[in-house]
Amino acid sequence: MHMLEPVVFKDGALVLIDQRLLPHETVFVTCKNETETAAAIKNMVVRGAPAIGVTAAYGMVLAIANGTDANKAAAVLKAARPTAVDLANAVDYMLTEIKQGKDAQHAAIAWHEKIKQSTRKISEYGASLLKDGTSVLLHCNAGPLATAGFGTSLGAVLEAAKTKKLSIYVDETRPRCQGSLTSYELHAAGVPHHVIVDCAAGSFFKSGRINAVMVGADRITKNGDVANKIGTYPLSVLANEHKVSFYVLAPVSTFDFSLQSGDGIKIEERSEQEVLKIRVQDIYVHGTKAYNPAFDVTPANNVTAYVTEYGIHKNVAELLMLLKR
Amino acid sequence: MHMLEPVVFKDGALVLIDQRLLPHETVFVTCKNETETAAAIKNMVVRGAPAIGVTAAYGMVLAIANGTDANKAAAVLKAARPTAVDLANAVDYMLTEIKQGKDAQHAAIAWHEKIKQSTRKISEYGASLLKDGTSVLLHCNAGPLATAGFGTSLGAVLEAAKTKKLSIYVDETRPRCQGSLTSYELHAAGVPHHVIVDCAAGSFFKSGRINAVMVGADRITKNGDVANKIGTYPLSVLANEHKVSFYVLAPVSTFDFSLQSGDGIKIEERSEQEVLKIRVQDIYVHGTKAYNPAFDVTPANNVTAYVTEYGIHKNVAELLMLLKR
Repeated sequence: MHMLEPVVFKDGALVLIDQRLLPHETVFVTCKNETETAAAIKNMVVRGAPAIGVTAAYGMVLAIANGTDANKAAAVLKAARPTAVDLANAVDYMLTEIKQGKDAQHAAIAWHEKIKQSTRKISEYGASLLKDGTSVLLHCNAGPLATAGFGTSLGAVLEAAKTKKLSIYVDETRPRCQGSLTSYELHAAGVPHHVIVDCAAGSFFKSGRINAVMVGADRITKNGDVANKIGTYPLSVLANEHKVSFYVLAPVSTFDFSLQSGDGIKIEERSEQEVLKIRVQDIYVHGTKAYNPAFDVTPANNVTAYVTEYGIHKNVAELLMLLKR
Repeated sequence: MHMLEPVVFKDGALVLIDQRLLPHETVFVTCKNETETAAAIKNMVVRGAPAIGVTAAYGMVLAIANGTDANKAAAVLKAARPTAVDLANAVDYMLTEIKQGKDAQHAAIAWHEKIKQSTRKISEYGASLLKDGTSVLLHCNAGPLATAGFGTSLGAVLEAAKTKKLSIYVDETRPRCQGSLTSYELHAAGVPHHVIVDCAAGSFFKSGRINAVMVGADRITKNGDVANKIGTYPLSVLANEHKVSFYVLAPVSTFDFSLQSGDGIKIEERSEQEVLKIRVQDIYVHGTKAYNPAFDVTPANNVTAYVTEYGIHKNVAELLMLLKR
């Protein structure tokens, strides 16, 4: 487990690491109700599909403790961010448990525990895909911080790096530079790596220096299309162009079996200020316009395999067979 | 012509706009000899293949005026940056003129004038490729600032925007964010546009919002391979994947007919600090490693057409026929 627990529920309070300030400052944010929890998710104090699911589950505990209507709290939390389905899945699970008269805190801890176990398994399955000497590219951050567990794509790399020598490329992942979180978590584990700007990945594919891509996911539809951090789709095109394996690692809570394909996924459009500024630093003329979609959709065709806590699957049909749905 | 002349030779002095400080500050740097000129090119006070060629030509004038050996000065200037062939082409031209007893200042002004005329023609030819209503993506900066003339890819867009309605997407172009220069020049001309982070381009291709890509070049080899700013190659892959035209606009001084293919092009590797910091702002943990190649090579196969001052060419063989080489 990571030295820093991004999501902790203790003595009736939800304490989050403010991931916006990492790696330079470690500041904790305490949420006392579902509104503060939703704000922390929206503002990306906490981010990463599994981690925001866990956070929202605890947000439901706070709401119930405060005597807030469960349906109302669920709506507030679900509205915080639209793309990652873990958020809705976690909140729906909590609603069901609460309506069945189960203890909310017990239910939330069980969800969190399930994510920890799922991500540990995903990390192990994913690590088995990385041979000694492999060069792997990571986009965005899907490690312990993003999952409130062991991580998915970065979890697999951290696991593999325990026994194998890897060349690890970390995409900057503009506009929010979550590559700095991946780099930070690799640093914490003492694993050597190199950061590249997003647009440099093409050259590294072309010169044969990348053998595998591993990404997490925010929502995977029934046909296998994958919504994930903006910049994932072009990496899948490059990987396919260069016959490089493109792995998607995610717990089953990230799958949305109700959606036929990625065309139905709502893509969050975030503030253009994220593009125009880098933290405190203006880059562009005041008044410059920008587009800033936070995610993109990778077609199932571009995915080599899906890695879940149930194993390594060629396609979603294979996973559904396993789940006997 | 742009309101700001990036390279001015006046009263025996070479005056450059410090493009590293644009768009927020307008500061001028004066070079008194070839060493200062080479440093300004190396540190990217002035950048853009045609602009550094013009700058180096004036650097030769300073050397001659100071009584410096022409061959020695030429070597210093050529070593400033390795990838853009305009630099070597301009210096070699100056050497020939000087050895033939021509006036150095007259020769440099003639080179600069040729670039102005070439880039004006390229802008007009390029503009003819952009129909009313076209969405065009620009990478890096190839406008007046980059050419000490009218610009190439951005020149074409500025020209087309005078009479046509375009949707203009400006890539951020990390690590040095030259997209901010493109945005600045579009602002100066009153042309609306949107900035996107580099890794977002894939989504805009996928949703059909980009109809054309226009880029400049640093070196084009005999088979048509194109070295240009890092991030150009993946855009060519995406353009080809989505059947979008991918245009390369460059004066003949950017062609290196002595090199058979892009495999022979030396790719400049710049300081990793450019990746790890954004201007003054640290993003990563101190000691983090990075790779930072400044250019990549786009195979001829991915290029829809080359636009030079001689017109629009399907391939380099067509251009060579025109040049009767």
